[in-house]
Amino acid sequence: MAESVERLQQRVQELERELAQERSRRVLGGGDGVGGRARIEKMSPEVVDSNPYSRLMALKRMGIVNDYEKIRTFAVAIVGVGGVGSVTAEMLTRCGIGKNGGLEEGKPVDLVLSCVDNFEARMTINTACNELGQIWMESGVSENAVSGHIQLIIPGESACFACAPPLVVAANIDEKTLKREGVCAASLPTTMGVVAGILVQNVLKFLLNFGTVSFYLGYNAMQDFFPTMSMKPNPQCDDRNCRKQQEEYKKKAAALPKQEVVQEEEKIIHEDNEWGIELVSEVSEEELKNSSGPVPNLPEGITVAYTIPKKQEDSVPEVTVEDSGESLEDLMAKMKNM
Amino acid sequence: MAESVERLQQRVQELERELAQERSRRVLGGGDGVGGRARIEKMSPEVVDSNPYSRLMALKRMGIVNDYEKIRTFAVAIVGVGGVGSVTAEMLTRCGIGKNGGLEEGKPVDLVLSCVDNFEARMTINTACNELGQIWMESGVSENAVSGHIQLIIPGESACFACAPPLVVAANIDEKTLKREGVCAASLPTTMGVVAGILVQNVLKFLLNFGTVSFYLGYNAMQDFFPTMSMKPNPQCDDRNCRKQQEEYKKKAAALPKQEVVQEEEKIIHEDNEWGIELVSEVSEEELKNSSGPVPNLPEGITVAYTIPKKQEDSVPEVTVEDSGESLEDLMAKMKNM
Repeated sequence: MAESVERLQQRVQELERELAQERSRRVLGGGDGVGGRARIEKMSPEVVDSNPYSRLMALKRMGIVNDYEKIRTFAVAIVGVGGVGSVTAEMLTRCGIGKNGGLEEGKPVDLVLSCVDNFEARMTINTACNELGQIWMESGVSENAVSGHIQLIIPGESACFACAPPLVVAANIDEKTLKREGVCAASLPTTMGVVAGILVQNVLKFLLNFGTVSFYLGYNAMQDFFPTMSMKPNPQCDDRNCRKQQEEYKKKAAALPKQEVVQEEEKIIHEDNEWGIELVSEVSEEELKNSSGPVPNLPEGITVAYTIPKKQEDSVPEVTVEDSGESLEDLMAKMKNM
Repeated sequence: MAESVERLQQRVQELERELAQERSRRVLGGGDGVGGRARIEKMSPEVVDSNPYSRLMALKRMGIVNDYEKIRTFAVAIVGVGGVGSVTAEMLTRCGIGKNGGLEEGKPVDLVLSCVDNFEARMTINTACNELGQIWMESGVSENAVSGHIQLIIPGESACFACAPPLVVAANIDEKTLKREGVCAASLPTTMGVVAGILVQNVLKFLLNFGTVSFYLGYNAMQDFFPTMSMKPNPQCDDRNCRKQQEEYKKKAAALPKQEVVQEEEKIIHEDNEWGIELVSEVSEEELKNSSGPVPNLPEGITVAYTIPKKQEDSVPEVTVEDSGESLEDLMAKMKNM
């Protein structure tokens, strides 16, 4: 009997230990039976199981990136962690980013990434970044889930969100079918993945200084069309901090030594076609007409999300009051008699 | 004492139950304390927590896809589950694909996806698909991790892998720095994510019949350039099953009622540029010269991975024997004397 109790007590201890182990494994997210790992302090090019960075470090050996380890020194803030933001956060982590998080008060970051899903949130980020001179990247997916874009905004150097109506990639879809208040928008893991991928790729190119960083890159999933462009800031921008940043950028640019820029424009034309290759047609002119108001001149396949309404001084939101023709004095006299 | 034994026995049972629960939770991949969920039999447009498909079903309401539920009826085989294949499998699952797995003998699938990392594996898939008339999609990422592509191969209708040298997207990188045997190739989660994203998007468009399905879509991450093209099969293809499929396709096409195809080619040119928009330059002519042999006529930014060597009858792999000038009879006589 005593032996039996002892055996049972041992079994209880054994089970408690196993249970604690299982729980810690699950919390650490491992389905592999390994209880997580500590932060790796140095990115090593060594090809061993315990080093997840060898294939990133190979980018140095191949001459793509001069100093890949520098990624550990950068902090990026992601605003909005939905379809695009969650994939973005995961990709940045796997790329070895130093700090990756939301916005915390007073903490400077190298880049702000906007992964929000509405215009008001974008304008809030825009206003804050213009004030701080904070470089940011914006991302967006259309409500029909078949187009998206990324945009780099360097305050004073490229157009901010208040400079011009936001640009979207047209997808030849009837705009009337799009999301209305209270109606669930469509979403595709594929489109989210592509937009997050081109966003984080642009982040890496910007932070690690390789390749061409895109100011605007669109994605039309229906036609596999990816228009790129850049846009100068509007000197008459409504945001006074944007105008201030523009002045500062002009001064900085003027102080730099002058460089001769030689623009090469070459077109390759293949006269014969022995391999029977055909270029697939891309977008039609129709797409540029899919807007509700006057449209600026834009490259093929890019259009505005909407047109900016006429500016109103002290406009009253939602409720408008009819002008009764009474003077301020009349109205004040009325109020006193109430 | 008896009570103590009973209590201990109860505790053992309790712990065993908890441990089994923990283990099943971990196996099901839930870090959320929920023990997975059963397969959902019907894709519903209803917006509730228990239905992960409402935002996919919104594609129907928005007029993008006629019958999204049809995705449940398709089976896709993924060959190679590395950087691209693993993301592809996960995306297809979230998109609601019916069956998603590797190759199982004798089981017909709607599409084979090649996510392998070497030419021999691609040629094996090519040979098998030509024999079976199986439609497949190929994907690839360059060894420097900054370019990739997807390709749709419909046996008899589009070029197979034996019809022409495989195409890659040039990235303006010195080819000499690329992977050699035994050297670890570079890899970027971003490039893998974009390639998997455009692959699965093409799968959805192909299976669910919406948008333009791309026969070839390249990705140059350095310059954010995405060339598209299509390529006809080679009537002199080395693969006799490819030639057989070409004959069958011709017969099928001839039996179809004739359709007038009107090709529209429109270019939009904007004379004034009040918004200060500049088109970002894309690829240079240099890229097409980055090949080791004669290059077919290809669209801007696409080049061949290598050129196909001259065909050798009964070529001896690896070991070559110098011709001694002796006849077969001489050699056989020598062997008898050994």
